[in-house]
Amino acid sequence: MSAPIDFYFEFASPYGYLASLRIDAIAAAYDREVAWRPIMLGPALKLTGSMPNMSAPLKGEYLKRDAPRFARMLDAPFKMPPVMPMSSLAASRAFWWLHAQDPDMAKGFAQAVLHAHWGEGRDMSTADQVAEIGETLGLPKAELKAGIEDPAVKAKLKEETDRSIERGVFGSPFIFVDDEPFWGADRLDQVERWLATGGW
Amino acid sequence: MSAPIDFYFEFASPYGYLASLRIDAIAAAYDREVAWRPIMLGPALKLTGSMPNMSAPLKGEYLKRDAPRFARMLDAPFKMPPVMPMSSLAASRAFWWLHAQDPDMAKGFAQAVLHAHWGEGRDMSTADQVAEIGETLGLPKAELKAGIEDPAVKAKLKEETDRSIERGVFGSPFIFVDDEPFWGADRLDQVERWLATGGW
Repeated sequence: MSAPIDFYFEFASPYGYLASLRIDAIAAAYDREVAWRPIMLGPALKLTGSMPNMSAPLKGEYLKRDAPRFARMLDAPFKMPPVMPMSSLAASRAFWWLHAQDPDMAKGFAQAVLHAHWGEGRDMSTADQVAEIGETLGLPKAELKAGIEDPAVKAKLKEETDRSIERGVFGSPFIFVDDEPFWGADRLDQVERWLATGGW
Repeated sequence: MSAPIDFYFEFASPYGYLASLRIDAIAAAYDREVAWRPIMLGPALKLTGSMPNMSAPLKGEYLKRDAPRFARMLDAPFKMPPVMPMSSLAASRAFWWLHAQDPDMAKGFAQAVLHAHWGEGRDMSTADQVAEIGETLGLPKAELKAGIEDPAVKAKLKEETDRSIERGVFGSPFIFVDDEPFWGADRLDQVERWLATGGW
C-alpha cells in the first residue's frame, strides 16, 4: 500500500465538510489510506491577503447558495450554521489530542463535529460544544476539555498548520496525492482520476 | 429555445479560457445559446478585497500547477503567458466593439484571443497585439484600434462590468443558467447537470 493521501481541512469550511464525505471512499477504491489533517486556515488567509469567502462581499452570498446546492447534489445533509466562520480552535485541538491516542477515533470525532456543524447547523466554536460531541463517542467531557488545554496539543496544531503552509496549503479542503496538490471539493474528481491513472 | 446562458469571463483568467473551450458544446446539447460576456474583473476584486490569484502568495504557485494540469486533462493547448495577469482592457473593448456589429464574429475573436494568450502563451495586453488577432479574422487593424477608442465601446464595457457586479460576479468564469449562478471552470459539470435536470 502506498503512502496515505493527506487531507487538509478547516472545520469552519463547508467545502472541507463536503470533501470529507467522499475522500475516504475515493482513496479506498485505490487501496489508499487518508490522513485527516485539520488545520487553522487563518494564518494562510493572512499570508494570501484573503478573508474567509463567507465574509467577503459577493463571495459570501455566492457561498451561501453554492455550498447547500453542492450538498444537495451529493444528497448530503446541510444546514447553514448560526456562526460563520466559527472558531475552529477547540475542535482542531481536540482532534490532535485524540489523534495522539487513536487516529481512527480522531477521524470519527472529526466526522461527528463536521456533521454537527454543517449537517445540523450547530455552532461548534466552544470547548463545551466540542466536548458534547466527544461525549456521544464515549469521551468524558472533562478529559477532552483538559486535552484541548494541553501545551503539547496546542504545539501540535501549530506545527501542522505551519507545515501545511510550507506545503502550499491556502484553502480548505487541500489534498495531496503523494506530492501532487489539489485544492477544493471540486477537485475530487481530479484526485480520483490521478489515483486511477498515476497522473497526466 | 430558452434564454441564452450568460458566460462571464475575464481574458486574463486561465479558468475563463478553460471554460470557454466547453461551454458552447454543453449548452448546445440542451438546445441553449451562450452569450459571451467579457468583463474587467478588477472592480470586483477590489470589492471583495482580493488580488488576482496568480499574484497572491501560495495561490499563485498553485495556479501555475493547477491550470496547466486542468488543460492537459482536457487535452487543451496551454502555455503560461509571459505577463500575468495581462491587461485585458484592449481585448475586452475590442470584443464589445465587434459585438455591436456581429455577435458571432465577436465570439470567434474572443476564442482567438484566448487561444493566443493561454494556448500559445502570447501577451495580449496591447491594442496592437489584439489588433493582430483581429487581422487574422479579416478585420483591418486600424478599424479595430479605432473601435477600442470609441467612447460608446468604453461605456459598453463599463456597463457590462457594472451589471456583472450587480448580478454577483466576482470571479472568472461565472455562468448564469437563467438566474442560477455558477463560479469556476470546475462548475461546468454542475452547469450541465442543471441544464439536464432543471435544477435540484
